[in-house]
Amino acid sequence: MMRVDLNADMGESFGDWRMGDDEALLGIVTSANVACGAHAGDWDVMARTMTMARNRGVGIGAHPGFPDLQGFGRRRLAMPLDSLANLVTWQFGAARGMAASLDAQVRHFKLHGAMANMASEDVKMAKAAYQAALRVDPNIILLVLAGTAQEAAARELGASWAGEIFADRGYNDDATLVTRGQPGAMVHDPEEAAARMVEFVKAGAIIANSGAKIPAACDSICLHGDGPEAVAIARAVRAALEAKQVTLAPMAARTA
Amino acid sequence: MMRVDLNADMGESFGDWRMGDDEALLGIVTSANVACGAHAGDWDVMARTMTMARNRGVGIGAHPGFPDLQGFGRRRLAMPLDSLANLVTWQFGAARGMAASLDAQVRHFKLHGAMANMASEDVKMAKAAYQAALRVDPNIILLVLAGTAQEAAARELGASWAGEIFADRGYNDDATLVTRGQPGAMVHDPEEAAARMVEFVKAGAIIANSGAKIPAACDSICLHGDGPEAVAIARAVRAALEAKQVTLAPMAARTA
Amino acid sequence: MMRVDLNADMGESFGDWRMGDDEALLGIVTSANVACGAHAGDWDVMARTMTMARNRGVGIGAHPGFPDLQGFGRRRLAMPLDSLANLVTWQFGAARGMAASLDAQVRHFKLHGAMANMASEDVKMAKAAYQAALRVDPNIILLVLAGTAQEAAARELGASWAGEIFADRGYNDDATLVTRGQPGAMVHDPEEAAARMVEFVKAGAIIANSGAKIPAACDSICLHGDGPEAVAIARAVRAALEAKQVTLAPMAARTA
Amino acid sequence: MMRVDLNADMGESFGDWRMGDDEALLGIVTSANVACGAHAGDWDVMARTMTMARNRGVGIGAHPGFPDLQGFGRRRLAMPLDSLANLVTWQFGAARGMAASLDAQVRHFKLHGAMANMASEDVKMAKAAYQAALRVDPNIILLVLAGTAQEAAARELGASWAGEIFADRGYNDDATLVTRGQPGAMVHDPEEAAARMVEFVKAGAIIANSGAKIPAACDSICLHGDGPEAVAIARAVRAALEAKQVTLAPMAARTA
Repeated sequence: MMRVDLNADMGESFGDWRMGDDEALLGIVTSANVACGAHAGDWDVMARTMTMARNRGVGIGAHPGFPDLQGFGRRRLAMPLDSLANLVTWQFGAARGMAASLDAQVRHFKLHGAMANMASEDVKMAKAAYQAALRVDPNIILLVLAGTAQEAAARELGASWAGEIFADRGYNDDATLVTRGQPGAMVHDPEEAAARMVEFVKAGAIIANSGAKIPAACDSICLHGDGPEAVAIARAVRAALEAKQVTLAPMAARTA
Repeated sequence: MMRVDLNADMGESFGDWRMGDDEALLGIVTSANVACGAHAGDWDVMARTMTMARNRGVGIGAHPGFPDLQGFGRRRLAMPLDSLANLVTWQFGAARGMAASLDAQVRHFKLHGAMANMASEDVKMAKAAYQAALRVDPNIILLVLAGTAQEAAARELGASWAGEIFADRGYNDDATLVTRGQPGAMVHDPEEAAARMVEFVKAGAIIANSGAKIPAACDSICLHGDGPEAVAIARAVRAALEAKQVTLAPMAARTA
Repeated sequence: MMRVDLNADMGESFGDWRMGDDEALLGIVTSANVACGAHAGDWDVMARTMTMARNRGVGIGAHPGFPDLQGFGRRRLAMPLDSLANLVTWQFGAARGMAASLDAQVRHFKLHGAMANMASEDVKMAKAAYQAALRVDPNIILLVLAGTAQEAAARELGASWAGEIFADRGYNDDATLVTRGQPGAMVHDPEEAAARMVEFVKAGAIIANSGAKIPAACDSICLHGDGPEAVAIARAVRAALEAKQVTLAPMAARTA
Repeated sequence: MMRVDLNADMGESFGDWRMGDDEALLGIVTSANVACGAHAGDWDVMARTMTMARNRGVGIGAHPGFPDLQGFGRRRLAMPLDSLANLVTWQFGAARGMAASLDAQVRHFKLHGAMANMASEDVKMAKAAYQAALRVDPNIILLVLAGTAQEAAARELGASWAGEIFADRGYNDDATLVTRGQPGAMVHDPEEAAARMVEFVKAGAIIANSGAKIPAACDSICLHGDGPEAVAIARAVRAALEAKQVTLAPMAARTA
């Protein structure tokens, strides 16, 4: 029996500003990556988002990012690794505190935005961030970009982890994403995205745009909720997986 | 045998800006109130401060405040109570996460600045903040301004708490502080401050400037570290208490 | 010939977060109150908004607020008056710099949110804020809530000013707004709002819900752009005024 | 007759946090680079600093940086050039507004921290920032790191500019600074620093640690005020220049 998790970033509103359609996404996904206040997601947004996720049985994850509201955590920021570790600890702690106050639990941990991009290229940086999280909770599941330095770091640390793939992005033969703006970078059609994800999960492999199969930890599919196309893709992916009797559930952890 | 705790606010630096002499204070106090990042105390400062406190066996407390760096949390801000509760949860969680990562523990919880002042006048606000902390950790010790709405709130909640008195402030007959700028508001002389504290602790009472004794929970003496006079007072209070064989130790909890 | 200005708050997005429909509003109003970065409206948003306003011949105003992104400047914050003045100067200067770089001009100045509410009750606070603006530009037009301490402050300062009325709010007999939540507080029907504004402008008076006429400086009508109802009201008010041959143009200044 | 300007960064306090000894520095320098609120220097600090500078006849400059209080603007942040330009405009405008309200004037413009470092390597970035400043005030004097991409950008723009050299840093043969941590990177001795500056100014050249003379625009000497050594160097440099009858005055502008 095949099993996969569907995750999405959420809780990315701030104050009076709304972002994404968390309600709609929570009806589709099985894990929610909740912003922690540095790049988005103030205390009220975090409380609201975690409450909704808990009520629907969706797994809760901490989703820390750079302290950059104006840039939404998407701008690369050069931080020393010890400061990065402290920043991650602080955000992860805040998320755990909020979850505890709601009788909920933070099950997983995923880096956001530029912090994630940098950590997918730089194993030292990924290890600094992940070690920080593990010092707070040694059982936390690290949700890593499959096949990147993030995965290598999780493996080196002997941590619990799960691999993430993208429903709406094309892959190169080395399992990296096709750069945005290049042909084949984005998958816009919900049915195509859904069919691809069924293939990936069945194969236990990323299937590159060339057709090449790269064995990979296809544990969790990243979906988006910004805009009608994104929600349509999310729904289609879920429907296609259900039609193939793939079990949808909060991510399980690998330990090697 | 008499026992009292000596507490001080610390970890109030931010980025490259330094505030107070935490190293000096940590050699004097038995409990440290550590800022949580909203009014002061970024993640790096918090990590440094908790590490030093842990290494010296000083009790660690979370010290949340309003999200107001420019005003250092000293300006009154009108927040709805549910948002205040979320804000407190978020900061308390961050502090607990940081402590956990350092194999340390957050033992107590004290409100900062304008948030503390408002909560000492408004029992509903105090309860909102304290309930938020208790939902994260039901065993946390609430450090309350003795004789104020803070104490009333802690009692109503049936929480563990300890009462705080000031070494450098004069008191009115109703146990409120003499307003700054009024005669008798401040105690500048270290020996006088020290003698007063010995009296308060022995009597189990606040002794007003008029001489009136107001029975009060004199569990923890608040000291300051900003400026040479403050550190001198802190040292003198500690020395005077030790000379009287008063045991100095992290605060114990009352439960009624 | 009657003349009136239509103003609306805009440029209230921040980073990736959008707020309001500035494009739609700019097709309706004759003056734009542009946020300055403290409560909303970062540098990029400000540049975009002023560029659009300039291109459409809409008058540009600075719209400073409290430094409170999470609360959108709507929470009361206790600031000393000299600090308030500096805060206003800083934001007004930023707006003027941005306008200058776009070959545009800041014509008017309006306080935002809780800062505006407090200044409408407290003439000292209003004067502190307005004096700060006048020291930067003695010719700036102060857009004041007609009949409030804001107007009194502008008059006392001998400044250029214009009076503002609301299209979607009911008034008491003393020209104050009916408190939100009370019957008659809000006007939801676009046609009713439009008819009222025509009446106010013709009468040169606020017409209270009781029917009482209170002579007032009905120089500029405040419209909103958050939600379809608000934009519908804005369009209806403009159409009704045009049908009555009321000239719509950026606010003119009174000087007494 | 030789002439040189002495400049220093100041107004870098924030809220209750103090940084540097601006009072002492203002007795030594002839130009002050005033922080604009993004990396340091809130509205109150800016008002205080500009008032002191004005009262002493010290030239006032805007000193914008990245929006990064916790990192003091010293961390590299990847911003698109148009957003960088808007950020600079916003800060420059704020500084000009504050100066105008104090009957003072912003004479020059200098980039801070990581923004300055990046612009000294990247002529496109330097041009984006400088063009933004020039659109606000075409007569502003750009204070550039002599011999870097900053200077090249100012020249390409045909702007008014002045070249800056460092009293406390060693130079390589290509006019770049010896990297901190390398031998010869820092000049700690006040007399040595002073003697070097006299030599540089007389020669109209940077004198590298090797002895090589690199003709350079030695228009303004950068001094520091953080710590007793820095102030001692500043005083010694001033005294040595005065002893050699070098005129000390706010920077004059080059235009080629």
